[in-house]
Amino acid sequence: MQLTRRDFARFGALGLAARFAPALNAQNPTRKTGYAIIGIGRIAYHFMAGIQNTTNSSVTALVSGHRDKADKVAAQYGVPAGSIYSYENFDEIAHNPNIDAVYVALPNSMHAEYTMRAARAGKHVLCEKPMSTSVTDSEAMIAACKAAKVKLMIAYRCHYEPFHMRAIQMIRDGKVGQVQEISSCFGFNIAPGEWRLNKMLAGGGPLYDVGIYSLNATRYLTGEEPAKLTAVMSTIDHDGRFNEVEENMAWTTLFPSGIVASCSTSYGANTGGYFKVYGSKGWLALDPGFNYDGVHMHGFVDGQVIDELNPSRDPYQFTAQADHFSHCVQNNLEPNTPGEEGLKDMRLIAEIYRAARMGA
Amino acid sequence: MQLTRRDFARFGALGLAARFAPALNAQNPTRKTGYAIIGIGRIAYHFMAGIQNTTNSSVTALVSGHRDKADKVAAQYGVPAGSIYSYENFDEIAHNPNIDAVYVALPNSMHAEYTMRAARAGKHVLCEKPMSTSVTDSEAMIAACKAAKVKLMIAYRCHYEPFHMRAIQMIRDGKVGQVQEISSCFGFNIAPGEWRLNKMLAGGGPLYDVGIYSLNATRYLTGEEPAKLTAVMSTIDHDGRFNEVEENMAWTTLFPSGIVASCSTSYGANTGGYFKVYGSKGWLALDPGFNYDGVHMHGFVDGQVIDELNPSRDPYQFTAQADHFSHCVQNNLEPNTPGEEGLKDMRLIAEIYRAARMGA
Repeated sequence: MQLTRRDFARFGALGLAARFAPALNAQNPTRKTGYAIIGIGRIAYHFMAGIQNTTNSSVTALVSGHRDKADKVAAQYGVPAGSIYSYENFDEIAHNPNIDAVYVALPNSMHAEYTMRAARAGKHVLCEKPMSTSVTDSEAMIAACKAAKVKLMIAYRCHYEPFHMRAIQMIRDGKVGQVQEISSCFGFNIAPGEWRLNKMLAGGGPLYDVGIYSLNATRYLTGEEPAKLTAVMSTIDHDGRFNEVEENMAWTTLFPSGIVASCSTSYGANTGGYFKVYGSKGWLALDPGFNYDGVHMHGFVDGQVIDELNPSRDPYQFTAQADHFSHCVQNNLEPNTPGEEGLKDMRLIAEIYRAARMGA
Repeated sequence: MQLTRRDFARFGALGLAARFAPALNAQNPTRKTGYAIIGIGRIAYHFMAGIQNTTNSSVTALVSGHRDKADKVAAQYGVPAGSIYSYENFDEIAHNPNIDAVYVALPNSMHAEYTMRAARAGKHVLCEKPMSTSVTDSEAMIAACKAAKVKLMIAYRCHYEPFHMRAIQMIRDGKVGQVQEISSCFGFNIAPGEWRLNKMLAGGGPLYDVGIYSLNATRYLTGEEPAKLTAVMSTIDHDGRFNEVEENMAWTTLFPSGIVASCSTSYGANTGGYFKVYGSKGWLALDPGFNYDGVHMHGFVDGQVIDELNPSRDPYQFTAQADHFSHCVQNNLEPNTPGEEGLKDMRLIAEIYRAARMGA
């Protein structure tokens, strides 16, 4: 089976889509795409390290509420003092020609505001997942980027991870036969005090944070959109961590072809992050599959046992992701994971919560 | 954490319950419990082989529609010709003093009739799972056995498998911390022509057949009964196998404590049969867990990696199961998996189908 036109659009990592796109809004391809990093938290360090391994991207500005931290990072990445912004003077990035794009790595609920402000400043936006904390915000983000004629990509790093791409292609090629069921899980035992436990900042519990990996995976593995969703959620530990968001969420998806997916996520247990795809002729798993490295393919495919570790080390996924977005910016291409991809997950997250709130 | 009183009743494999039970209805303990095997299919061969390894049980009669097959088995197990019955003269087992109990290994929908006829003949009943194909039939089976003052046990062999019992005890002892989530799956790619594909005989699809292992496991692992169930089902392959029963079923369970379980079963993919329990301090899996042998414990428990294979070979589970039921018969004890345990699963199966039929 060949990749369908939809696959082609979504997994254009294959690189062909580029050839036919008009060359509007493209950056001068002879220089690197300069990024302003918004929110210097844990994931931003991975992203900046990833950028250093690209040939087409560089860190050219920082946006932070902590000037000390920003100065330290600026020294490491050669960012001039004049390119360090606070949240107050953020909009001045509009006047900085070394900033082509922003990377939004703030708490979830702040994605919308800074994406839209960046768009108004004429900058392309690479925004972390979840795209935002509501469907409305997500739609506004897409509209703002369209209006400003800037690109919006959601940082679904697994779409730029070679083993995930191989898994998709193997499934499309029928290597496990007809897919019947998918099982996926991603959870960890969260420490008290994390912003992720603040509903206003996070939007909700582990589904927004790590569960979205499983949700997104069931969509890229099947190439389908859910026809039916069911869910349950719970909080078990009354130790102060879960006063605002739930601890566990499990959901089941029926896809139009009949493929069923069982997924769960937790802030109360280190489940690892994996998916397993069961087909009529074999199975395929990435376990672990959602970590920054150590992605391990297991399976029984085409009558053969597969057991293969991707030896690439962190930040290789961030490198591939930045490389892709910069390539899109430089060549006026639509990213493989545009805002619309993020919006689909946001709509499904809303559906999962709706289902979880339904009675027994 | 200690086993609760309920655990104690259910997992009396610990052997203590016996001491306090009245000695009514007990067989003379000096001789083996004699079994009539009803339905000489695949699983009956395992059961008979299992009996041979017990010290308290023996095959003393056969019930079959195929006299040739019965004669062959009779020769192997030393069953006299006079103790071979057909389905027509089955009720004559009442007059055979060498038959203490029957083992019902017929297609699911026939369990009820032969359990009740055996009870009326004054014989104890060990019935394969699923107990029957309806809640009504299951209730009638329990009532018939109570009225006849015979014991009824459902053949949930995992309750007599040491690694399953160890897993339960480890979980009760808090070795993985507070359990948050359970994932379990059991499915296989079914061959055309099996009676399991006939709805009248089977009752339904893979949930009745192998999915019941996951369903039952989530109950014995948690020691709780579901508070909420959601489900989806599907048939993907239109190749003649699934004209009567569905191919796939996935369901999610919320338990009163907040533990969530994600389970699925399939007749379209060899998923293996396993469970994984994720807790706040570790995890524990039997993978594979539901096969006749090769039960493999994996986990991270008490800060230690566990990776241990149960070296016991088939038919050890059938031996343990027959040994337990014969012990109950001889000492007038309630089996660990009585009819009521089977009925609970039957009610849940009905609930899962109801949930699966609900719209998107």
